[in-house]
Amino acid sequence: MISRRMQKMVAANSVIRAMFEEGLKLAREYGKENVYDFSLGNPNVPAPEALKKAALKILSEDDPVKVHGYMPNAGFPTVREKIALSINKRFGTGFTSANILMTVGAAGGLNVALKALLNPGDEVIAFAPFFGEYRNYVANFDGELVVVPPNTETFQPDLRSFKELIHPQTKAVIVNSPNNPTGVVYSEETVKRLAAILDEKQKEFGTSIYLISDEPYRELVYEDAFVPYLTKYYRNTLVGYSYSKSLSIPGERLGYVVVPGEVDDFEQLFQAMTVANRILGFVNAPSLMQLAVAECLEEKTDIAYYARNRETLYTGLTKLGFKLVKPEGAFYLFMKTPVEDDSAFAQAAKKFNILLVPGSAFACPGFVRIAYCVSYETIVNSLPKFAELSKQYGL
Amino acid sequence: MISRRMQKMVAANSVIRAMFEEGLKLAREYGKENVYDFSLGNPNVPAPEALKKAALKILSEDDPVKVHGYMPNAGFPTVREKIALSINKRFGTGFTSANILMTVGAAGGLNVALKALLNPGDEVIAFAPFFGEYRNYVANFDGELVVVPPNTETFQPDLRSFKELIHPQTKAVIVNSPNNPTGVVYSEETVKRLAAILDEKQKEFGTSIYLISDEPYRELVYEDAFVPYLTKYYRNTLVGYSYSKSLSIPGERLGYVVVPGEVDDFEQLFQAMTVANRILGFVNAPSLMQLAVAECLEEKTDIAYYARNRETLYTGLTKLGFKLVKPEGAFYLFMKTPVEDDSAFAQAAKKFNILLVPGSAFACPGFVRIAYCVSYETIVNSLPKFAELSKQYGL
Repeated sequence: MISRRMQKMVAANSVIRAMFEEGLKLAREYGKENVYDFSLGNPNVPAPEALKKAALKILSEDDPVKVHGYMPNAGFPTVREKIALSINKRFGTGFTSANILMTVGAAGGLNVALKALLNPGDEVIAFAPFFGEYRNYVANFDGELVVVPPNTETFQPDLRSFKELIHPQTKAVIVNSPNNPTGVVYSEETVKRLAAILDEKQKEFGTSIYLISDEPYRELVYEDAFVPYLTKYYRNTLVGYSYSKSLSIPGERLGYVVVPGEVDDFEQLFQAMTVANRILGFVNAPSLMQLAVAECLEEKTDIAYYARNRETLYTGLTKLGFKLVKPEGAFYLFMKTPVEDDSAFAQAAKKFNILLVPGSAFACPGFVRIAYCVSYETIVNSLPKFAELSKQYGL
Repeated sequence: MISRRMQKMVAANSVIRAMFEEGLKLAREYGKENVYDFSLGNPNVPAPEALKKAALKILSEDDPVKVHGYMPNAGFPTVREKIALSINKRFGTGFTSANILMTVGAAGGLNVALKALLNPGDEVIAFAPFFGEYRNYVANFDGELVVVPPNTETFQPDLRSFKELIHPQTKAVIVNSPNNPTGVVYSEETVKRLAAILDEKQKEFGTSIYLISDEPYRELVYEDAFVPYLTKYYRNTLVGYSYSKSLSIPGERLGYVVVPGEVDDFEQLFQAMTVANRILGFVNAPSLMQLAVAECLEEKTDIAYYARNRETLYTGLTKLGFKLVKPEGAFYLFMKTPVEDDSAFAQAAKKFNILLVPGSAFACPGFVRIAYCVSYETIVNSLPKFAELSKQYGL
């Protein structure tokens, strides 16, 4: 009785979410400390103290009618202005509040952008491996996801295949750096080549191709890796951002999209995205969190915490004989499975209460994603279990 | 360059929202006290003190990793359980957490339900006048909105026309009582007749027709008007609820949908709606607000405040010669315009800095909606302006 589209989507329900809910179940059964749940990007680092202070102050001192009330669908103008200035300060851009649309997380932002852009049959390119939800977001608006195959050596985008997969009906390209699930950061060289290809193809086809940069992991980089700000390299760029990871508030659903003034049809696009924000049922990004986050734009999560997890887990797993690329960002390790069938490997891991997400969920079989945004104890205690697992595979 | 669908939607952009944003502009120009903005259902009654206390306590005492973190897409199980029990206590129902899906406001809930239910071309019935966004929500999933013409004498639903408009492809019926924009409450007699018609038609066509009760105004009733709880009258009922008006937190985007266990294909439907919540980009309802509201389920907004506004405005406008039905609920008056062209009348009112929404926006021309959720001073000070306006029309 449910819609045919949803039947498909329910059948292919997020492996990640299924794992997360299974992890909660296992934790009740075996005790939280005996479950090594690496399934979900749910930060274990608390939100910065400054966020708590800001929220407490706003709740205590400000007029609740303003704090909890409706504002323009694009968000509080003051909040949008502060965010624009903060981006300008960091990246030398020239945005104003008119370029910032507050959204219900990065997921809300991507849906709003795709709703505004896609006609049925329009193509959206993503680079494997990619966050599996992109497929659903594109399908929401009857678009076609076109997948660039992965380079499983470096996990940098394969730009040669990319170029061949751009068609006259290509409306958008989604990139995600630092990357989920690999942790890889796109180099400036890569970004420049990607931009040049897009420029060339726009000219060739006489079309507008929007580059959508999905950046929830921007602040999560190690050893000062450089993450280029894409609006500076390619004119038709939209940047989707989220505070889920940078401030550890994924449950609060707060993010924004930057729409630079120089993109094709800027005014029409910004208005369409604002209307889409309303029509899709978001209406606006949650109000108290908008106000609180605007007071914490210089705050960052505790990157040292993740760096220690990354180092310990990467070193430990490598010693056990597992193969992984050492990531420069995000909080994921993407590990080659010792057998081809990544789902079978994830099942085997589950017997040790280790929860991993098969690479197939990211259009990249033969790997598993390990979300190491867990407690350090979980990392340390999981290693003997990983050792038992590795023995099963003769590593 | 934006999608063809969005071009239409931008062109027909919400008159209500346009008014709201114009109101903010006028307030800057003439001073807030000289603008009578009756455009938006943005409550002027502050959220209950208990909500502030609950939020402060949670922020101060609870683990931020839990408070701001991901939870299952359907919401915190503890919150869902508390809400189920609270509904059971009030209405004698038998719900559990398994029947409650936490949503990003009622707008999010309606979209999630429609995404789960609609195949392209499926019909959804609404009774004019109705909240104009229903048209967009149905269009989001390629459904067809079928409008039952209004009964402009009583604004009770015209059940005779309704019966004729139910077809084999009718998948859902949206009702909204207390009603936006009329304030009318559907009587128990009406509800029983409506349920009987639906039962009959389900049997006739061998289909499932879901009744979606959109209830953001449930708590806003005057003189103890009785608002039937629809799951008790018709088996295939979903109830969409929002805390926007009942707790004056429209900017926070918090609501839920009740999916009773006895609806056709319950398990499949609940799962599809949960997946839709994720896929549409909501992911989950905002976490802190879920937890805070769960501590305030017995709280209500200050209904006496709205009752005074309603009385003063209804009496004042009637004395001036305007024609209106006295509403039993919500915070809207739906006033007959002295000329046929409701947009022209709204334009004329704007010259007095009175902002009203033309009835055309609710599929009911010849009326204007007056949202009286404003300050009492605005009501009192607007009356001399309404008097000048009435003179223009020779009332």
